[in-house]
Amino acid sequence: MAGRIEKRLAELGIVLPSPPSPAANYVPAVLTGSLLVCAGQVSAVPGGEAMKGKLGDVSMEHGQKAARICAINLLAQVKAALGDLDRVKRCVRLGGFINAKPDYAPLPLVMNGASDLMVEIFGDAGRHARTTVGVAQLPNDASVEVEAIFEVA
Amino acid sequence: MAGRIEKRLAELGIVLPSPPSPAANYVPAVLTGSLLVCAGQVSAVPGGEAMKGKLGDVSMEHGQKAARICAINLLAQVKAALGDLDRVKRCVRLGGFINAKPDYAPLPLVMNGASDLMVEIFGDAGRHARTTVGVAQLPNDASVEVEAIFEVA
Amino acid sequence: MAGRIEKRLAELGIVLPSPPSPAANYVPAVLTGSLLVCAGQVSAVPGGEAMKGKLGDVSMEHGQKAARICAINLLAQVKAALGDLDRVKRCVRLGGFINAKPDYAPLPLVMNGASDLMVEIFGDAGRHARTTVGVAQLPNDASVEVEAIFEVA
Repeated sequence: MAGRIEKRLAELGIVLPSPPSPAANYVPAVLTGSLLVCAGQVSAVPGGEAMKGKLGDVSMEHGQKAARICAINLLAQVKAALGDLDRVKRCVRLGGFINAKPDYAPLPLVMNGASDLMVEIFGDAGRHARTTVGVAQLPNDASVEVEAIFEVA
Repeated sequence: MAGRIEKRLAELGIVLPSPPSPAANYVPAVLTGSLLVCAGQVSAVPGGEAMKGKLGDVSMEHGQKAARICAINLLAQVKAALGDLDRVKRCVRLGGFINAKPDYAPLPLVMNGASDLMVEIFGDAGRHARTTVGVAQLPNDASVEVEAIFEVA
Repeated sequence: MAGRIEKRLAELGIVLPSPPSPAANYVPAVLTGSLLVCAGQVSAVPGGEAMKGKLGDVSMEHGQKAARICAINLLAQVKAALGDLDRVKRCVRLGGFINAKPDYAPLPLVMNGASDLMVEIFGDAGRHARTTVGVAQLPNDASVEVEAIFEVA
């Protein structure tokens, strides 16, 4: 039987991808005490499209969609790690890294693509502390990378 | 009656700003267990001056003042979250992001503006683990952004 | 008597450097609850060679060696903080910052230099959540900086 969060995902028409395994000596998430510390997820649909390019070259809409994809990929990893998304008590923190040209300043608007998704899914429990910065480059020229910490029951 | 840390702030002539509410689906700080995880604060005085521009273009003194403002803004958010700054047991970590030209290497000296403030306020309990990096851009061209984790009683 | 992890370091021919003291108002590591939060360590051998320069200018092999040096420096700080590396239960997270030109995309391969070291030393307990980004600059033009969180017994 689908849980509360799975139902919410279905209502929103969001299908979580099969989370890819890391290609190296790291893991997608580590549970320590009540904290699930998640590896940074880039804006690529596993097995599909990658949202690439630097903000300033690509549009803000592209960047917002990229940030949303990162957030969806994080949820796929959380589900794989916990088995059940209903175990999430709170999204504690998102760290947003935007692949940006040195003069591209509206970074928070890009990152809203990830933050909004968390609140759409978890409601007030999705409201998180957030850091957003513009970086020189990201793995495989992804437009956005987002890391996360969740509190779990 | 003012607490111990409030008295220290007064001695130093530091007035905490009214912390601004985030303009999007995130919050300034999340308390999880004994950890207060704080959102990145940029170098802008709420309702007032913003310290903008890239290190390399702006002076180190500008950058150090910007880092100090970030630290003061963090304390304003901690006070808003906890009610009483005396509940802070330790500044665990500061993450410093410096808006920097690709050839600007003395980043730690800039970040000292934030680290020094924490030790001025909290004494040895203000000594933190620290990461300092130079990034391509920050929200609204702020010169510095600092995020923090505090241990609270 | 050397512990299990010290023996493993000796098998691998790795000698931990004397960890340098931070040159400012911060500390190399803070223990909070069961988490050891470590300051970012750059790719410089204390008292010796510094691995400098931007990926894109310097080779990937240079970058991978730099990332490995960061990881070794982290272990030196963990040993100094805990007394005994056998107290490490898990490497929870590595944050990798690569000093990179804006078009240098194979950042994860560089960061593998740090991730591989953790697994060589700790085995499965060395597998961590990881975030890798390319930044505009690092302290003193270091090629790589890595920060870490460990779970300790």
